[in-house]
Amino acid sequence: MVEEVLGHVLRLPEPPTLTVAGRTDSGVHARGQVAHVDLAAEVWQRAEVVVGRRLRSALPPDVRVLRAAPAPAGFDARFSALWRRYAYRVADADVGVDPLRRREVLAYHHALDVDRLAAASRPLEGLHDFATFCRRRPGATTLRHLQVLTWERDPAGLVVATVQADAFCHSMVRSLVGALLPVGAGRRPVEWAQQLLADGRRVPAVNVVPAHGLTLEAVGYPADDELALRAEATRATRERSR
Amino acid sequence: MVEEVLGHVLRLPEPPTLTVAGRTDSGVHARGQVAHVDLAAEVWQRAEVVVGRRLRSALPPDVRVLRAAPAPAGFDARFSALWRRYAYRVADADVGVDPLRRREVLAYHHALDVDRLAAASRPLEGLHDFATFCRRRPGATTLRHLQVLTWERDPAGLVVATVQADAFCHSMVRSLVGALLPVGAGRRPVEWAQQLLADGRRVPAVNVVPAHGLTLEAVGYPADDELALRAEATRATRERSR
Repeated sequence: MVEEVLGHVLRLPEPPTLTVAGRTDSGVHARGQVAHVDLAAEVWQRAEVVVGRRLRSALPPDVRVLRAAPAPAGFDARFSALWRRYAYRVADADVGVDPLRRREVLAYHHALDVDRLAAASRPLEGLHDFATFCRRRPGATTLRHLQVLTWERDPAGLVVATVQADAFCHSMVRSLVGALLPVGAGRRPVEWAQQLLADGRRVPAVNVVPAHGLTLEAVGYPADDELALRAEATRATRERSR
Repeated sequence: MVEEVLGHVLRLPEPPTLTVAGRTDSGVHARGQVAHVDLAAEVWQRAEVVVGRRLRSALPPDVRVLRAAPAPAGFDARFSALWRRYAYRVADADVGVDPLRRREVLAYHHALDVDRLAAASRPLEGLHDFATFCRRRPGATTLRHLQVLTWERDPAGLVVATVQADAFCHSMVRSLVGALLPVGAGRRPVEWAQQLLADGRRVPAVNVVPAHGLTLEAVGYPADDELALRAEATRATRERSR
């Protein structure tokens, strides 16, 4: 979609290839997505002042480009990234989800205890093999550095998980949240998610929660002079994974 | 919709008639709507404990019943109301509206000055004939008490109008906002809306802004022992208007 519109706006013979920082499954939202595209210098010089405005009017209202700018040398939206941060939003209120937010919030039918969620999540932080929470892909590592897994009740009363890692394997955030919600509801012991992680294999009891509650919120990059090095290192260890 | 589901849930031979506090045009949202329905005492006694849960599962996710309870004597959702409060939300950022909020926020293509909006709005507060901002209906009064018309920039960067009155005539909030936005953008003088009000007739230059930016936020009622009196007084002066 963005590729086609970009090709049209830049008057290229073919749509350029967009590389995005965090691929999102169907139904997952992205508020802080980052992408790069390789363009000839003269194409950018011709288009720089109009590209933002033209993209805004040509893209449908569910896709907004917040900023477009030349990237520093060595920048790769996917491989230079240090971390991706997602939020998963849950309404545990009896009455369900505010209709105006129903497309980005999960309705959960049990009251959640945020302290229990936090206690159950803490042991999952750090460098672990997340095979339990990953759809297995042959030859792909499931080792990930889970930098942040915290929970809060926001001013609107929603329970929000913040999940940040160097990278995520397929459906990892939704599997983690699916394992933790029953703990927050008091239906599983606090140690349950930690035990699942240690077991190292997917179990049917872990629900993968629906995509619509998940939003990619931000992507982090190192300082400009480390972009190329970081991309090289990531490519070496993760070329075949996600 | 609610009437039919309610009839079904309460096992009534016919759907009951729902009286709502603020009728909303197609596309307008309501977060704080209030409604009443007259039921035989035995119907309520039979259904009280299940009605909330059954309504939640039977209604589509864009309609939520937050609470259902017996009303005090003399209560009329429409005629006992002292005020209705609406919010109109506008994104004046260059990049447009956050896609997740695009169904409840207007994209406005000029930067807005909240202080100008406030200065232009203050003279409109109070008891006035709002014929300029009302779709004319034969025999209906256009006299309204506009209790609040204020503007703020919220934490998300949206410009939000709060508009509260004893009652509103058709498309009144959307006409008021339509008259004020060009003032906030510096394209009309600060006195413009006040002059329009004084002129007392609709002018084509006043845009009625789209419905989707408008949300009914709350409805206010007097103390229980004044409900019947208030309803009687409103009926007497407003039966033929709205």
